[in-house]
Amino acid sequence: MPSTIAQPAAAMDALDRARALLGYVLVSAEPGRAVVHMTVRDDMVNGLGVCHGGLIFTLADSAMAHASNSDGEAAFAVAASIDFVSPGVTGAVLTAVAVEQFRRGRTALYDVVVTSDSGDVIARFHGRTQHRSSA
Amino acid sequence: MPSTIAQPAAAMDALDRARALLGYVLVSAEPGRAVVHMTVRDDMVNGLGVCHGGLIFTLADSAMAHASNSDGEAAFAVAASIDFVSPGVTGAVLTAVAVEQFRRGRTALYDVVVTSDSGDVIARFHGRTQHRSSA
Amino acid sequence: MPSTIAQPAAAMDALDRARALLGYVLVSAEPGRAVVHMTVRDDMVNGLGVCHGGLIFTLADSAMAHASNSDGEAAFAVAASIDFVSPGVTGAVLTAVAVEQFRRGRTALYDVVVTSDSGDVIARFHGRTQHRSSA
Amino acid sequence: MPSTIAQPAAAMDALDRARALLGYVLVSAEPGRAVVHMTVRDDMVNGLGVCHGGLIFTLADSAMAHASNSDGEAAFAVAASIDFVSPGVTGAVLTAVAVEQFRRGRTALYDVVVTSDSGDVIARFHGRTQHRSSA
Repeated sequence: MPSTIAQPAAAMDALDRARALLGYVLVSAEPGRAVVHMTVRDDMVNGLGVCHGGLIFTLADSAMAHASNSDGEAAFAVAASIDFVSPGVTGAVLTAVAVEQFRRGRTALYDVVVTSDSGDVIARFHGRTQHRSSA
Repeated sequence: MPSTIAQPAAAMDALDRARALLGYVLVSAEPGRAVVHMTVRDDMVNGLGVCHGGLIFTLADSAMAHASNSDGEAAFAVAASIDFVSPGVTGAVLTAVAVEQFRRGRTALYDVVVTSDSGDVIARFHGRTQHRSSA
Repeated sequence: MPSTIAQPAAAMDALDRARALLGYVLVSAEPGRAVVHMTVRDDMVNGLGVCHGGLIFTLADSAMAHASNSDGEAAFAVAASIDFVSPGVTGAVLTAVAVEQFRRGRTALYDVVVTSDSGDVIARFHGRTQHRSSA
Repeated sequence: MPSTIAQPAAAMDALDRARALLGYVLVSAEPGRAVVHMTVRDDMVNGLGVCHGGLIFTLADSAMAHASNSDGEAAFAVAASIDFVSPGVTGAVLTAVAVEQFRRGRTALYDVVVTSDSGDVIARFHGRTQHRSSA
């Protein structure tokens, strides 16, 4: 029987109902690094015809969650910032790559870059996570 | 026939498919201020059993979008930051209040506070918007 | 003999050598709120002829430090963000008003607004502090 | 006679009176990348005995300014955020390395990492600049 310790990323994945809501695909997750894909659907665009910035943030935040939880311990975001630089249009396949930049004790910092299959950078995200136990 | 000039917030609302995805309710929108409600559903909680931070960001970002578009001109977020201070649990009714703090030319700054019907502050959000024409 | 408990803001003030460097004046400090003034000197302007953004950040950060330390316990900034919206020119008198927006346990959030005696908003700052003991 | 086009970083340097105030040394500057050093002086420490966070921000912001102005055109910071992760103590030699992460038209994004000669990461900074002309 798989334990949440042995397969934490898979466990996270199974638990993550928001993942179903957004329909993103977890491409890879290892301690300190994760990659997710999401296709911009018709129901994700806002009044201006482009992907809701909140959903792009959510994609980046999810990538960070997978990277920060993949060692089997609970971690949660305490703060984050994002710069939106290009719109994500309907049908675009977005990729978010989260990489840990700093870790000490219970605090870690992540950078996440979101790009489109068009080659454009869509957004850059920076997050701070808090871990339940120190590394 | 209603024009997008005369009823911009309603038009935004009608166009906003993301609103349906999240199921938030636009309580009020006037130039520089908007209030939205969202109930945390089962499919919004993350692997840790609390509302996905990205969806809380999305709620706050939506409130800002309604406040910044309610004068009938297109505005979009260029950057935002958020501090998560309490979890949003399943069933909680979250309220996001967006208030414009600064406006000059094409740039505006907004603060958004997200609270729960439990009385807790859930998050504080700060965003920068860019407007297609100057005020 | 004044104790650091009884007069923490004064103690902070006395200790704060950076205050001398920047020449700012502590107008008022009480738990959760502080006001500081700084005149933009010739040696504070950058290559573009306006006050170095870092010094405006430092002014805002100092206001937050006075507000968060005025109850006699040590607090330090863990993160902050700033939006620069108007330049501070030589000779301008800048005022930074820091107000606590949230506090629970060891974490607090502050907003600081920096204005000029010309009436312009110069910058808006948001900071997160960590306190050595919970409130 | 040196032109501001041919030697923009040197020109910035000559103009930058704040540089004298902080005593930082410009190690290198090329378009999109700059390195600066600063020794933490007695007059830079705050009431808690460590380098004022504002001055660490100023160092990072200065590194970004040199990187973003080194192609000879005026650029200025419109927003920035910083995470403070270790204190800078008196006598420590801090190094800030600014690297452009994104550039399109008049907007650029920079990451700056500040480290100490002790080997510690002191802070991570993220900034957005606006350029007077598009690249």
